[in-house]
Amino acid sequence: MKGAIIFGSKSDLEKMKGAAACLKDFGIGYESHILSAHRVPEKLTEVLKRLEQEGCEFIIAGAGLAAHLPGVIASKTVLPVIGVPLNAAFDGMDALFSIVQMPKSIPVATVGVNNSYNAGMLAVQILALKYPELKQKLIDFRLRMKEQFIQDNSEGVEL
Amino acid sequence: MKGAIIFGSKSDLEKMKGAAACLKDFGIGYESHILSAHRVPEKLTEVLKRLEQEGCEFIIAGAGLAAHLPGVIASKTVLPVIGVPLNAAFDGMDALFSIVQMPKSIPVATVGVNNSYNAGMLAVQILALKYPELKQKLIDFRLRMKEQFIQDNSEGVEL
Amino acid sequence: MKGAIIFGSKSDLEKMKGAAACLKDFGIGYESHILSAHRVPEKLTEVLKRLEQEGCEFIIAGAGLAAHLPGVIASKTVLPVIGVPLNAAFDGMDALFSIVQMPKSIPVATVGVNNSYNAGMLAVQILALKYPELKQKLIDFRLRMKEQFIQDNSEGVEL
Amino acid sequence: MKGAIIFGSKSDLEKMKGAAACLKDFGIGYESHILSAHRVPEKLTEVLKRLEQEGCEFIIAGAGLAAHLPGVIASKTVLPVIGVPLNAAFDGMDALFSIVQMPKSIPVATVGVNNSYNAGMLAVQILALKYPELKQKLIDFRLRMKEQFIQDNSEGVEL
Amino acid sequence: MKGAIIFGSKSDLEKMKGAAACLKDFGIGYESHILSAHRVPEKLTEVLKRLEQEGCEFIIAGAGLAAHLPGVIASKTVLPVIGVPLNAAFDGMDALFSIVQMPKSIPVATVGVNNSYNAGMLAVQILALKYPELKQKLIDFRLRMKEQFIQDNSEGVEL
Amino acid sequence: MKGAIIFGSKSDLEKMKGAAACLKDFGIGYESHILSAHRVPEKLTEVLKRLEQEGCEFIIAGAGLAAHLPGVIASKTVLPVIGVPLNAAFDGMDALFSIVQMPKSIPVATVGVNNSYNAGMLAVQILALKYPELKQKLIDFRLRMKEQFIQDNSEGVEL
Amino acid sequence: MKGAIIFGSKSDLEKMKGAAACLKDFGIGYESHILSAHRVPEKLTEVLKRLEQEGCEFIIAGAGLAAHLPGVIASKTVLPVIGVPLNAAFDGMDALFSIVQMPKSIPVATVGVNNSYNAGMLAVQILALKYPELKQKLIDFRLRMKEQFIQDNSEGVEL
Amino acid sequence: MKGAIIFGSKSDLEKMKGAAACLKDFGIGYESHILSAHRVPEKLTEVLKRLEQEGCEFIIAGAGLAAHLPGVIASKTVLPVIGVPLNAAFDGMDALFSIVQMPKSIPVATVGVNNSYNAGMLAVQILALKYPELKQKLIDFRLRMKEQFIQDNSEGVEL
Repeated sequence: MKGAIIFGSKSDLEKMKGAAACLKDFGIGYESHILSAHRVPEKLTEVLKRLEQEGCEFIIAGAGLAAHLPGVIASKTVLPVIGVPLNAAFDGMDALFSIVQMPKSIPVATVGVNNSYNAGMLAVQILALKYPELKQKLIDFRLRMKEQFIQDNSEGVEL
Repeated sequence: MKGAIIFGSKSDLEKMKGAAACLKDFGIGYESHILSAHRVPEKLTEVLKRLEQEGCEFIIAGAGLAAHLPGVIASKTVLPVIGVPLNAAFDGMDALFSIVQMPKSIPVATVGVNNSYNAGMLAVQILALKYPELKQKLIDFRLRMKEQFIQDNSEGVEL
Repeated sequence: MKGAIIFGSKSDLEKMKGAAACLKDFGIGYESHILSAHRVPEKLTEVLKRLEQEGCEFIIAGAGLAAHLPGVIASKTVLPVIGVPLNAAFDGMDALFSIVQMPKSIPVATVGVNNSYNAGMLAVQILALKYPELKQKLIDFRLRMKEQFIQDNSEGVEL
Repeated sequence: MKGAIIFGSKSDLEKMKGAAACLKDFGIGYESHILSAHRVPEKLTEVLKRLEQEGCEFIIAGAGLAAHLPGVIASKTVLPVIGVPLNAAFDGMDALFSIVQMPKSIPVATVGVNNSYNAGMLAVQILALKYPELKQKLIDFRLRMKEQFIQDNSEGVEL
Repeated sequence: MKGAIIFGSKSDLEKMKGAAACLKDFGIGYESHILSAHRVPEKLTEVLKRLEQEGCEFIIAGAGLAAHLPGVIASKTVLPVIGVPLNAAFDGMDALFSIVQMPKSIPVATVGVNNSYNAGMLAVQILALKYPELKQKLIDFRLRMKEQFIQDNSEGVEL
Repeated sequence: MKGAIIFGSKSDLEKMKGAAACLKDFGIGYESHILSAHRVPEKLTEVLKRLEQEGCEFIIAGAGLAAHLPGVIASKTVLPVIGVPLNAAFDGMDALFSIVQMPKSIPVATVGVNNSYNAGMLAVQILALKYPELKQKLIDFRLRMKEQFIQDNSEGVEL
Repeated sequence: MKGAIIFGSKSDLEKMKGAAACLKDFGIGYESHILSAHRVPEKLTEVLKRLEQEGCEFIIAGAGLAAHLPGVIASKTVLPVIGVPLNAAFDGMDALFSIVQMPKSIPVATVGVNNSYNAGMLAVQILALKYPELKQKLIDFRLRMKEQFIQDNSEGVEL
Repeated sequence: MKGAIIFGSKSDLEKMKGAAACLKDFGIGYESHILSAHRVPEKLTEVLKRLEQEGCEFIIAGAGLAAHLPGVIASKTVLPVIGVPLNAAFDGMDALFSIVQMPKSIPVATVGVNNSYNAGMLAVQILALKYPELKQKLIDFRLRMKEQFIQDNSEGVEL
């Protein structure tokens, strides 16, 4: 079980940590890369090729502004690509539109603005189809999440 | 290989055909259901439970307006849920926001407005991790798409 | 006279205090709950059922982002549900659209972004139909509000 | 049980029929008025006063563009006012903002753009607090809606 | 030469100072009032009546959110009403729409978000039609503005 | 009493007729010109100069898209300039922003999208400060509008 | 003098004709290509390489939705790339954001939605720096445009 | 090789530095001017005329709000005009629309909000058509950018 997290600049690092945290929690290996569709296209192609050869099973890609990275990656692989719109302008609406409105046949699985944790979770859910132990972990996670939620709020809340 | 396509009303049927067309092309079985998170929640839960027991591997859910259906489904299963925002008002922006901005831990893999074909394709790409023959089909599809594109435009275009 | 205020996370607590303040001012009892449509659906259903059995007469529900909570509650009860869009992204526009654009037959009475005080006031106005003493209180409140407004600004304002 | 449906122009008549249809279905009497906050303010005040004296229990108000009508009515009565944003420009977003963003203390219970049926339903749910027979009707309606939905879609759907 | 500046809350005072500054610069008298269309409608009507009787020649009205104040004033007088959308949510877009999209026959002369200085200037330009000395002042002001601009930037700018 | 209506293209003619209709109703003379800030700037300057010399008292300017015309006119005259955003793209939001968001000191009195009638009415209200007979006409118009409204809707409305 | 017009689908052909018309008017040669950044990336690279070798001096690229084409082209050449956002959803706002918000160092010269004529004109203005005869043509064009505008509207306009 | 950077106020100076930095890097001379289309139109015309006579080859113009400056400049010259929307309200969306949506025949080459560096780069790319040494510099810059990017991220990134 192995994936990759790719984004375009060190300045996006903090926003992408959620994806990594989620993958770690579920014991899924991943590589992280700072790559750019427009600055280092050959490097991107090369890394993607190597990743595929080494059995990478999904790509999480975060980008802001025109946010082409997830879509360009999606055009270069048939692996599922999960796109995270990052807020750099317009509250991230520019990135959201640029990622989600991909043309026919080349989808990017888009999650919420800055919500890289959900990108990680989506990757886990996708892998769980193939790895039954992961499915069990997900079911357990949901149960724990439920229990934790109930416990956290067990004393009620005072408004 | 089996999935489900769920949406909320017969009036959305045309917009969801793209998903079915894509799944058929790749030989992936699917059930279609008109279901509503808010009108028939028990029925929805029941269908989802049966689908999981029968080995369903993904859910494609289309919705317009407040568009809760994909998110509610996502909360009831750990299968990957692919959401298709449908244009019923605000050019589909209301549905897009309602589907993509899911809270931490319960993602919906969102595709473009009315772009149910891409939901189908994303499902194929997800299944291809598990079913190697599908991966080959995807690679062939991309090649054919490329060839078709080149052939369609081989005579050039006159402006 | 009794209602409930429900929201999804401790981080929304401050924004929901307006609703509580208003209900207190009018002597209306309420329970507060942190609950989630997607994390603890059974708990939500259970609490709603108990609330109805104990004579709860309205639900105020606040949510941000995809903001399904008010709509999901509305589908589970015929009590009036008052939705408060909370600003977590897009200035709260995502939450506003997700709450107000509910499908035919299952409305959520939506108030302004972060304006939970108005949710409380709407609850008071609704209860006042049934409880004449409340109607008088409302009329008095409006009068006092008017007098207060005039008094606050009695010295004029210097620009 | 009696309410009123108020809107600003004959051109909005079609869009407001949903509210009337819903009220009729639940046997709730209503008056309809074309009135304007800005063109006939005294007439509006006069009608509202008479309505209150005659026991009117809610006001449904539809408006497009700057859409002040629901808010102005809300400022003149402590009855619950339900606002319906009508699409006359900007897909109805201008009307939605003008209706939902009311200042502290004077809420308008806002429903979706052009969704006057939901305004009617909200009125029914509000009245049901006071009139137990209405509550039963609502519960029956929801059940029938559910059954109807299931029956309508019993033959499945073919995509 | 006399006008009025009206707004709804002390919290808007800072944003409305530009209007006052401009009127002072041109020697135009004005009254300032904190008034609300919805909280103190009779007071508003009364003040407007008195203002008209005392020869008030324009009203500048600032408001945020649903921002009905300028439009309600416009419906109560045939004096020119100048509306200033104030940013309280949605970057002031809600206020802009609520002020500018007035229905046929009852316009509000709308200026930019938070740009109360321009409301003052528009009032000056309107009065200048009637008071020739004001027209000359405006022409002089424009000249001085031009000279000042040139002087301020006479040393060039280094980037 | 004399003004001018200026817009940029014959294709906008229909949308500007409302302004002319209003001015005619109030017996205010006007010239109409198709002019462009960017195509015929000297002609625009020349026409504006002549208009001012001949006693023109206001300019109504309609424009779509980048919609610079009203603002450019405003920079060339101290007469009140009334801007009408015309819908050519983005539901007229681009034109609205381009017209209303003028910089400090050079306001354009902006009315609603495509609402040129209100531009005419604003001109009438502005002139009425100077011409008392016009003020009376406005008061009469408002009264007739009110009576007409009441008469038009005297038979009530059936929903 | 030679350029290229590239877009992604025959369905965009009509919207791109303006660019071609403008180039023809100024006697600038161009090739037209239907190409896709995501479907035929190698073909795109190959065509761009050949174009550069053959002395192509600019690229006009039109795209709708996620609209990556202009940006991807810009990353593959140092020729000026002119982007035309095409309206396929959201009134073309998605395409506008995806084209104009390019990251640092790789700009796309963006023109208005569907306004491919302006893309052609921008190309002409760019080439005119190098080809003096083109500069004269542009000056003449502007003059003719001015004269034509004046002549077209010489009879005045009747509103 | 010479161009100009023009903007409307000292408060925009910081946001325009990117353009200057880029031009300096490529050894392109430029003048900077604070000028306003509306405050000092004659000065603007005069400076533009002088610039053209002295061989200026492009204009970079930044503006916020109604942002007419780039478009007005574009109407006064046939040199390529590059517009930089500056964020002063609405996240810069008002400026973007006002700059990019120019009418037929008078384009402004628009870059991203606050992204003046890209305006500089676009100028370099435009000049490179005429000055071969600049083209080589651009190719070298892209290479260095690539190498720098790879080097900066050579140690990988840890999430």
